[in-house]
Amino acid sequence: MDVVVVGSMGYDAITTPMGAGEDLLGGSATYAGLAAAFGGHDVGVVGVVGRDFKDDDRALLEARGLNLEGLVCSEGSTFRWWGSYEGAMNEATTLRTDLNVLGTFEPRVPEAYRNPSVLLCANLHPAVQAAALDQVDAQRLTMLDSMNLWIETAKDGLLDVLKRVDVVVLNDGEVRSLGEQRTTAAAAAVVRGMLRPDATLIVKRGEHGAYVLHPSGPMVVPGVPSPGLVDPTGCGDSFAGTIAAALARGAGPVGREELRAAVERACVVASFTLSTVGVNGLLAMDEAAMDARRLDLQRLSQ
Amino acid sequence: MDVVVVGSMGYDAITTPMGAGEDLLGGSATYAGLAAAFGGHDVGVVGVVGRDFKDDDRALLEARGLNLEGLVCSEGSTFRWWGSYEGAMNEATTLRTDLNVLGTFEPRVPEAYRNPSVLLCANLHPAVQAAALDQVDAQRLTMLDSMNLWIETAKDGLLDVLKRVDVVVLNDGEVRSLGEQRTTAAAAAVVRGMLRPDATLIVKRGEHGAYVLHPSGPMVVPGVPSPGLVDPTGCGDSFAGTIAAALARGAGPVGREELRAAVERACVVASFTLSTVGVNGLLAMDEAAMDARRLDLQRLSQ
Repeated sequence: MDVVVVGSMGYDAITTPMGAGEDLLGGSATYAGLAAAFGGHDVGVVGVVGRDFKDDDRALLEARGLNLEGLVCSEGSTFRWWGSYEGAMNEATTLRTDLNVLGTFEPRVPEAYRNPSVLLCANLHPAVQAAALDQVDAQRLTMLDSMNLWIETAKDGLLDVLKRVDVVVLNDGEVRSLGEQRTTAAAAAVVRGMLRPDATLIVKRGEHGAYVLHPSGPMVVPGVPSPGLVDPTGCGDSFAGTIAAALARGAGPVGREELRAAVERACVVASFTLSTVGVNGLLAMDEAAMDARRLDLQRLSQ
Repeated sequence: MDVVVVGSMGYDAITTPMGAGEDLLGGSATYAGLAAAFGGHDVGVVGVVGRDFKDDDRALLEARGLNLEGLVCSEGSTFRWWGSYEGAMNEATTLRTDLNVLGTFEPRVPEAYRNPSVLLCANLHPAVQAAALDQVDAQRLTMLDSMNLWIETAKDGLLDVLKRVDVVVLNDGEVRSLGEQRTTAAAAAVVRGMLRPDATLIVKRGEHGAYVLHPSGPMVVPGVPSPGLVDPTGCGDSFAGTIAAALARGAGPVGREELRAAVERACVVASFTLSTVGVNGLLAMDEAAMDARRLDLQRLSQ
């Protein structure tokens, strides 16, 4: 298996100045898994849904190549999130969260998922991420995403899992909050000190792209300019999923050029994700359109 | 003459979470002029001060190579600005402004300043910028900076001067405000449409560096990571002054590589400006330290 993704799966209700939708298939494992599976990667999902999870959505995920053996269907309702974006749409405002079956989720990783090339712990409570790390022996590397909620409510647990992985993906607000510094660069240096000595920190900066602390030194990858922002939900998850897949078929420590190419691809994928409400922008992506945006992005630095 | 700078000169009182100072030599022409004169460029300043302008400050500017023939000393007091920065320190809060002699300033450009290589209209009321443009026939190019105050209070005048110059420098907040778009890239495309067809728009993005719309296509130059932010006052002015000087000794239309090198140098200079309260960080800069930071910056994109 190339990538195993542990994360949330659920239904979102989203309002942005550019669009809105309800009962949208969402969750960190949905976006990360769909992005990772793009291009034919073998991806397994570990997560939980309730009895109300729609057959159509299950069929969609499977049609996109996701292995759902690790997706448990529990008594109760699927996780639901209500969010809105205002102004420059940099940050979601959570209006309501119903954890439902996610509230008591204890990941059980299927036997077939135990040795993937890459394990991606997508955004979830750090204790659930720790339980996944306990059960998976990733062949190449482990990755982890998180969010401000866990920095505020489960910081000790988060600090523990941060020390257990090879690549950490956070956004700039999370890095400033966790590092307690005013600038992203200063905060990233502090957060880097919370990780393993040979770990990589990837800081997502919205339309500004990514700031990466790799053992070879820092690196900046610009964002794709002006792709028509409609809904940023899932950008960070599809970004992380893309990196996981891009690194899954390599071997040994992740090199600087390999990482740069992966982050560029992830910035391109995020630019498709944000172009519609829900997963449709991500689903509409194809390699030709991606190549065009990747060339645009590379020209920015030339 | 390499560069003529038209702008404000005055005294600032600044409070930031990292430092504070009063009676600090400041103003857009001060920062832009000092940055432009660095490295031996021949720079003239057009501006106005009052009778309280200190001889020591005049001597400092002259010692740094600024020609002050165009600096009028009027009856009355020098312009004063009180500002503070909070949080991520991206934007100044103006606590008080005393225009004093700047309130009735009508620029009179000395004969010796009439044909510089580059005219830089640093931040000032658009009507004053227009009066300077009327009097100067720049040999290579004209540049213009502005601020949110003029977008809000003198938009028609600003739109007029924007159409008269070759290079416009604005920060991302100003570009979003003027372009009335949520993302910097989208707003920059709108603002670009307000300029001459062959003009270049340089969007300053604080620690994220610069996003540039050049006739050859867009370009991103990252900021210098983690130089120790103390006071961002004057960063934009020293950024613009550096670009003016870097382009002053070339000829013909500004090429993409020439512009990239100028913007990289400007990002490096801004990283020195923000390292202290007032002009001291800028004054302490030397070529060896600049080279080291420029290499760091270039490595970010490799």
